[in-house]
Amino acid sequence: MDAGIIKKRIKAIRCQLKKKRIKSLLVTKPANVTYVTGFLGDDSWVLITKGGVYLLTDSRYIEQAKNQCHLCRIIERDKPMVEAVAELLEKLKSVQTVAVEKSVSLAAFEELKKHIKIRLKTVANIIESARSIKDKSEVAAIGAASQIAAQALRQTFAHIKPGITENESAGRLDSQIRKAAATNSFETIVAFGPNASRPHHRPTSRKLRKNDTVLIDFGVRFKGCCCDITRCFVIGRPNPFYKKVYDAVQQAQTAALKMIKAGVAAKKVDAAAREIIRKSGLPVYGHGTGHGLGLEVHEQPIISADSNAKLQPGMVLTIEPAVYIPGKLGIRIEDDVLVTKTGCRILTRNCSLRR
Amino acid sequence: MDAGIIKKRIKAIRCQLKKKRIKSLLVTKPANVTYVTGFLGDDSWVLITKGGVYLLTDSRYIEQAKNQCHLCRIIERDKPMVEAVAELLEKLKSVQTVAVEKSVSLAAFEELKKHIKIRLKTVANIIESARSIKDKSEVAAIGAASQIAAQALRQTFAHIKPGITENESAGRLDSQIRKAAATNSFETIVAFGPNASRPHHRPTSRKLRKNDTVLIDFGVRFKGCCCDITRCFVIGRPNPFYKKVYDAVQQAQTAALKMIKAGVAAKKVDAAAREIIRKSGLPVYGHGTGHGLGLEVHEQPIISADSNAKLQPGMVLTIEPAVYIPGKLGIRIEDDVLVTKTGCRILTRNCSLRR
Repeated sequence: MDAGIIKKRIKAIRCQLKKKRIKSLLVTKPANVTYVTGFLGDDSWVLITKGGVYLLTDSRYIEQAKNQCHLCRIIERDKPMVEAVAELLEKLKSVQTVAVEKSVSLAAFEELKKHIKIRLKTVANIIESARSIKDKSEVAAIGAASQIAAQALRQTFAHIKPGITENESAGRLDSQIRKAAATNSFETIVAFGPNASRPHHRPTSRKLRKNDTVLIDFGVRFKGCCCDITRCFVIGRPNPFYKKVYDAVQQAQTAALKMIKAGVAAKKVDAAAREIIRKSGLPVYGHGTGHGLGLEVHEQPIISADSNAKLQPGMVLTIEPAVYIPGKLGIRIEDDVLVTKTGCRILTRNCSLRR
Repeated sequence: MDAGIIKKRIKAIRCQLKKKRIKSLLVTKPANVTYVTGFLGDDSWVLITKGGVYLLTDSRYIEQAKNQCHLCRIIERDKPMVEAVAELLEKLKSVQTVAVEKSVSLAAFEELKKHIKIRLKTVANIIESARSIKDKSEVAAIGAASQIAAQALRQTFAHIKPGITENESAGRLDSQIRKAAATNSFETIVAFGPNASRPHHRPTSRKLRKNDTVLIDFGVRFKGCCCDITRCFVIGRPNPFYKKVYDAVQQAQTAALKMIKAGVAAKKVDAAAREIIRKSGLPVYGHGTGHGLGLEVHEQPIISADSNAKLQPGMVLTIEPAVYIPGKLGIRIEDDVLVTKTGCRILTRNCSLRR
């Protein structure tokens, strides 16, 4: 990770901390740790003080941390994390209060209270809200992830023929992603026929039949950042009802995309998509119309009826309206977009299904 | 999931709750939710009261919950989880106190405090300690996962030849796992040559060379349960130093396996393996010698120098001593074993590297 980008991020976070009169912050959420250090391993926490950024990790990750982190001090702990934090705080005598991220578990927070002698505070969404506006490196990584996804889907598509199972299809797709030096951002969903009515269906041994419908929902993680894409299609001839529903979902997505620009309330984007489905006389999907994505596959903001978020330039969102009819069909169309001042840029445009 | 098994688990947990004078428990950790309901989806919580078991989920998972859960009442929430819990508790007028798992986030606990009118308590390790002793269905699932792993490794092994990349090897392995209707229990590690000195190395585009060494650390999740296996080998001729280190790691593993039986302290198993590495004049690994595994890939007990655990029949453990020499090599041998009264049964015996 470019040291200049990390420097900017730390500066912005210190500025937020100053506003909230917080002098030091203990970062425990993995995606937040990555954001402030560039470190892509697990089981590591970060302490941000006025004078420094400290990555607390263990022997399994030392080599990796040295390769990935250029601005923080790397501390190899040989004791439980909480005790290592306590020891570091004792050494840094200037720190009198430390704020802990509220995403930490209650158990870990109790351990912290037991071991740390200085004052503990809790704080939420400092780094998460910085992360909701993507910097250039994140937009580039999500774009690159989408390119890898598009290519993997194209290569897999050629093999989706009657007889293949959902599992084999998912395996082929995942293996193409791996080949491109990337990983899945979540477990690939492949659903044939009525299986697609379960939005989070897990692939099974069901074989593809002639004129069967296919839903593929998958994501690629590249340089830590995620994309999240859903495509639906028919191998053979679509029946007229499927075609009707597909068109409604596509119109719903178009309506939502048209709404997007800086300053618009997230709930309005949600309503625009939902309205089209309702007017088509189809059942309205139970999940939100979309969500932010970046270092995590679900981030702020949420695009739903009860969201209070306002869109800002630099946000990256999924837009994924759907129709589910249990026992019959499921159709979802999902793309990732970058919010701009005047509209949005679709990052997953290349992920098309033309053979 | 067999209703009889779930019934037994709930009975055992209610018995633990009674001992701790807890009348109702809010289960928030995904693996614990699976354990008490059989439900394999995400984003769902469970309330256990004297009279019932309630799964709170959302529209995305309703079909799945109906298929997987036969003993609990399924509640489809259309509001944030915490509010749905509060609403349920208000309906169940007999519940006066609810204990919450300490693995919940601080943010969620604060929300619970805000919305729930009855008394909140916190509690740790009720379900985790039940889970540390596996029932027959879990041992069978881990065994089946190991069989799938063995077959996937065998099929992949045939393709590991000079020129293949770490990424391609991992992709091939993962795709075989998918084909067998299973998933990865964690991100597959494939490390060629000196890359293996990073215990949690992520696969890269590095190509396999003649006489290169290979480390593969991977796991399969089947029916919710995980296996976790590491194998090291050479494509070509091993150099004498690699062979010496490999033998030491294998002896260390054998020494640890010999120590295992019910009643033995976990730290003694750890010491037995570590001692062999030390005596061989090789650097001693920084991580523990092993860990429990089941619905999660890391569970109680930890097999390390500072573990207070005592082995009990029915525990399933990894045993994974190693030697890491940065820039030179990494060798780890990892198997999964079931602790018995008189010793242990190796569940991953079939996962051999013979072509």
